[in-house]
Amino acid sequence: MEQANALLNQPEFSAQGILRKFKVAALCTTDDPADDLAHHKAIRESGAATRVYPAFRPDKALAIHTPVEFNLWLDRLTLAAEMDIISSLPDLLEALTRRHTFFHSMGCRLSDHGLPHCYADFPTEVAASSLFNKVRHNKHKPGPDEHAQFAAYMMLFFGKLDASRGWTKQIHLGALRNTNTRAFQALGPDTGYDSIGDYPQAEPLAKYLDKLEQENALPKLILYNVNPVDNYALSTMIGNFQDGVTPGKIQFGSGWWYLDAKDGIEWQLNALSNNGLLSRFIGMLTDSRSFMSFPRHEYFRRILCNLLGSEIERGELPGDDALIGPLIENICFNNVVDYLGLDVGLGDLSPQISQITQIG
Amino acid sequence: MEQANALLNQPEFSAQGILRKFKVAALCTTDDPADDLAHHKAIRESGAATRVYPAFRPDKALAIHTPVEFNLWLDRLTLAAEMDIISSLPDLLEALTRRHTFFHSMGCRLSDHGLPHCYADFPTEVAASSLFNKVRHNKHKPGPDEHAQFAAYMMLFFGKLDASRGWTKQIHLGALRNTNTRAFQALGPDTGYDSIGDYPQAEPLAKYLDKLEQENALPKLILYNVNPVDNYALSTMIGNFQDGVTPGKIQFGSGWWYLDAKDGIEWQLNALSNNGLLSRFIGMLTDSRSFMSFPRHEYFRRILCNLLGSEIERGELPGDDALIGPLIENICFNNVVDYLGLDVGLGDLSPQISQITQIG
Amino acid sequence: MEQANALLNQPEFSAQGILRKFKVAALCTTDDPADDLAHHKAIRESGAATRVYPAFRPDKALAIHTPVEFNLWLDRLTLAAEMDIISSLPDLLEALTRRHTFFHSMGCRLSDHGLPHCYADFPTEVAASSLFNKVRHNKHKPGPDEHAQFAAYMMLFFGKLDASRGWTKQIHLGALRNTNTRAFQALGPDTGYDSIGDYPQAEPLAKYLDKLEQENALPKLILYNVNPVDNYALSTMIGNFQDGVTPGKIQFGSGWWYLDAKDGIEWQLNALSNNGLLSRFIGMLTDSRSFMSFPRHEYFRRILCNLLGSEIERGELPGDDALIGPLIENICFNNVVDYLGLDVGLGDLSPQISQITQIG
Repeated sequence: MEQANALLNQPEFSAQGILRKFKVAALCTTDDPADDLAHHKAIRESGAATRVYPAFRPDKALAIHTPVEFNLWLDRLTLAAEMDIISSLPDLLEALTRRHTFFHSMGCRLSDHGLPHCYADFPTEVAASSLFNKVRHNKHKPGPDEHAQFAAYMMLFFGKLDASRGWTKQIHLGALRNTNTRAFQALGPDTGYDSIGDYPQAEPLAKYLDKLEQENALPKLILYNVNPVDNYALSTMIGNFQDGVTPGKIQFGSGWWYLDAKDGIEWQLNALSNNGLLSRFIGMLTDSRSFMSFPRHEYFRRILCNLLGSEIERGELPGDDALIGPLIENICFNNVVDYLGLDVGLGDLSPQISQITQIG
Repeated sequence: MEQANALLNQPEFSAQGILRKFKVAALCTTDDPADDLAHHKAIRESGAATRVYPAFRPDKALAIHTPVEFNLWLDRLTLAAEMDIISSLPDLLEALTRRHTFFHSMGCRLSDHGLPHCYADFPTEVAASSLFNKVRHNKHKPGPDEHAQFAAYMMLFFGKLDASRGWTKQIHLGALRNTNTRAFQALGPDTGYDSIGDYPQAEPLAKYLDKLEQENALPKLILYNVNPVDNYALSTMIGNFQDGVTPGKIQFGSGWWYLDAKDGIEWQLNALSNNGLLSRFIGMLTDSRSFMSFPRHEYFRRILCNLLGSEIERGELPGDDALIGPLIENICFNNVVDYLGLDVGLGDLSPQISQITQIG
Repeated sequence: MEQANALLNQPEFSAQGILRKFKVAALCTTDDPADDLAHHKAIRESGAATRVYPAFRPDKALAIHTPVEFNLWLDRLTLAAEMDIISSLPDLLEALTRRHTFFHSMGCRLSDHGLPHCYADFPTEVAASSLFNKVRHNKHKPGPDEHAQFAAYMMLFFGKLDASRGWTKQIHLGALRNTNTRAFQALGPDTGYDSIGDYPQAEPLAKYLDKLEQENALPKLILYNVNPVDNYALSTMIGNFQDGVTPGKIQFGSGWWYLDAKDGIEWQLNALSNNGLLSRFIGMLTDSRSFMSFPRHEYFRRILCNLLGSEIERGELPGDDALIGPLIENICFNNVVDYLGLDVGLGDLSPQISQITQIG
């Protein structure tokens, strides 16, 4: 035990040591708009070889159905955005725009949303404002339809925000969260009582993307699903909204959460390969909350190589290293660098892009 | 380029040349009830070896929710059916019956429908008539429920029509169409902005088939799904409505659209084989709009042989050519000829049945 | 034919002969609460080596939407429970409690429910009582929402009943039943016109389990799905409600009905193995209504061994017999004995647990 502790105290097992050891070129954290990104300032000044960027995750801005938490969060956001007070919907949008600007100045080019499904019942601005006022000032607790409308309004706003600055939006679809009330009350959210939902995804997703497209506000987008039954719907949905300008603008994201084991990774690769363009794929992402998750990228690369290699052995792909080799390198590194426009400052670092939720 | 053009101008690369080259015994086009089938008359008189039949696809008869297009189509149908004017629901049914009769005289024995899902909320005749009148005469734009009821009414009518003449009905389930409004306005329908939907299918499908069954009007039927998640529901649904008289009366159709690649074809074959009777399967259909799609039939045959061959190698099927050989030949040709009652006039043509959307 | 009949009349082909031949240690039948379990008394007294237990299947207690059958069943239950008359909801609960007690005295430790999906719209006791009274006394025919509320009320009651006595509850989810009205009228229920439904399962299931958990009334539970698309949702759902005390308290049940062929069994095993703990799995169950279904257990065991063996060959599992051997033995026999607390009285019987619906 003492020996183990001594080992772990060596510099190569520090957070930055692990990043060096795994040759991580860049990583993104996931941050609430109200976060001050103090750790990011510190990392920037530390001269670490790995580029570390924030990602903008405004899930709490949709959560009008839990008014107590929503209002507390608005107060935190008020401070972060240096507003007098957020007392109307325009105030909220102004605060979020300020934070988006600040995140941009910190190198952020990526947003992220966790949704059971998209929301496509878009309210008028008047209706959304009125709902906001009732929650902010009159302790109203919105029902499911009101929540869905407000969420639709905000997601449209966030789409425009990301598109206006050339960011990439990520949407993680389909989780069923906080299923166990007793555990939630004892331990809080995100403590392991979430699982796979089975919501219809295709129609509301299409309507959301179409709405953005119609308003010339469809940003680069990565769609992740947690239920494998959505693989085929998503792998074909991305084809509806490519623009012919940005290669692979709409991405079908890699196997996520319960799907980032061998089966799930292969299913995603095959669905994409059957219905889309594997060569444009930006590859693996993991949001596991631990520096221990970097080997997942190696795991992904081996599964990818194994899958293509098996197809070569069966005569389904040409055994042409000049064709397949760069395909694999692009999926594993080059595509995501180009896609996100990352300044990876490679130096002696080899390819590895990752997102983790917390900097320990 | 010139050389290529010269090659393509040779007779074997004409439409009929390709049909001869691929030994296509019969093919069916897909036609609106308002079409005059002039091409079919011409082909009939040309003495082509391939039998070419129309298929009856009345999707526009359900589209009451787009009143402008619906009324324009009624005017086209008025002319085709040689009616005075279609001004009531009975007029519409009369016009469609006339066209069905005409299609029958042109050798048609097959209808086709493209539906997101079946409609099972059947309205009274009075309610359906009243809705028709509002759309035909008062510029009413029906809402989703009204559309669903009218579609249910019409699909019941079409079922009866097909059953009365011994036709086979095809239902293609689950596409999500016209997702991209901007592209739709620029390019129109069916231009590549359709993808896979995830509608619940089982219950409305069962109710539709049950309604036809109760009215002694269930025709031979082929069910196709575009989302692979529906494979198991459909492969078991067909068993509920077999009649013990017509072998394989209700068919689980071959992998369609996004599913007519190797994975999709194998999944359909395995679902059918696990839950139904593979030996009664009428095999591959492709609705790709090109004479270039004929090799898909060869692709299907190879996948079928490969699947059964692999099962033989693993000891899961007996290595008995006298058993498996005819099974494959039946799936690839004989079953569909018997099922559709095709007069294929084989001559020196070998088996290939196909449906293509347009005669070039 | 005569020879065959002679063979079948030999003792080893009697019901008990088959049980001996297949070395069945225990089996459970499926019984309505109104059944008198006379056969069970007879079996008990026969000295058969196989333990035979009833299972409590109160599906009819939910079927308030078919009032005629519901009231007839209440009359049968009145007699079985030795009540004066069941004329109120408390009377019904009292009668069911008495039958649960009687089943317990007959060795029953297992209940079973067949549901299209769970019901999670829990009514007040007053509302449930009022609905019961309308159906029992005023020939009211409840609509779908009323049925769903009553079913939710009863399933909560049954959960508490099972939890209070340490029973295990089984829920079979997702069948679409009685699809063919003509066949139903001619032949009655459960005659082969049922198939696979595609209902959303995750959210109502989570709400049902959460409700039980909140009321300290979540029994041991086995969840079965008939549609393979639900595998991933269910295999992760079980993780939300484990209690850290009873190993594998919430089970993802083996491939059921249309899924107890090779593909379905492998999919269930892989889903469980990817998302849960295979080593806690209690293994195969078949509810096929025939003594001919016992070889399915051998089929299951071979598929399990083949799956793990293939993973060992591919280097995905260690080739360690001391690790894998007991895993397989536990899944095939020991786990279910421990889980159900079965008194299997092994003698010279080898492991085989099964459930069949009828004792012939």
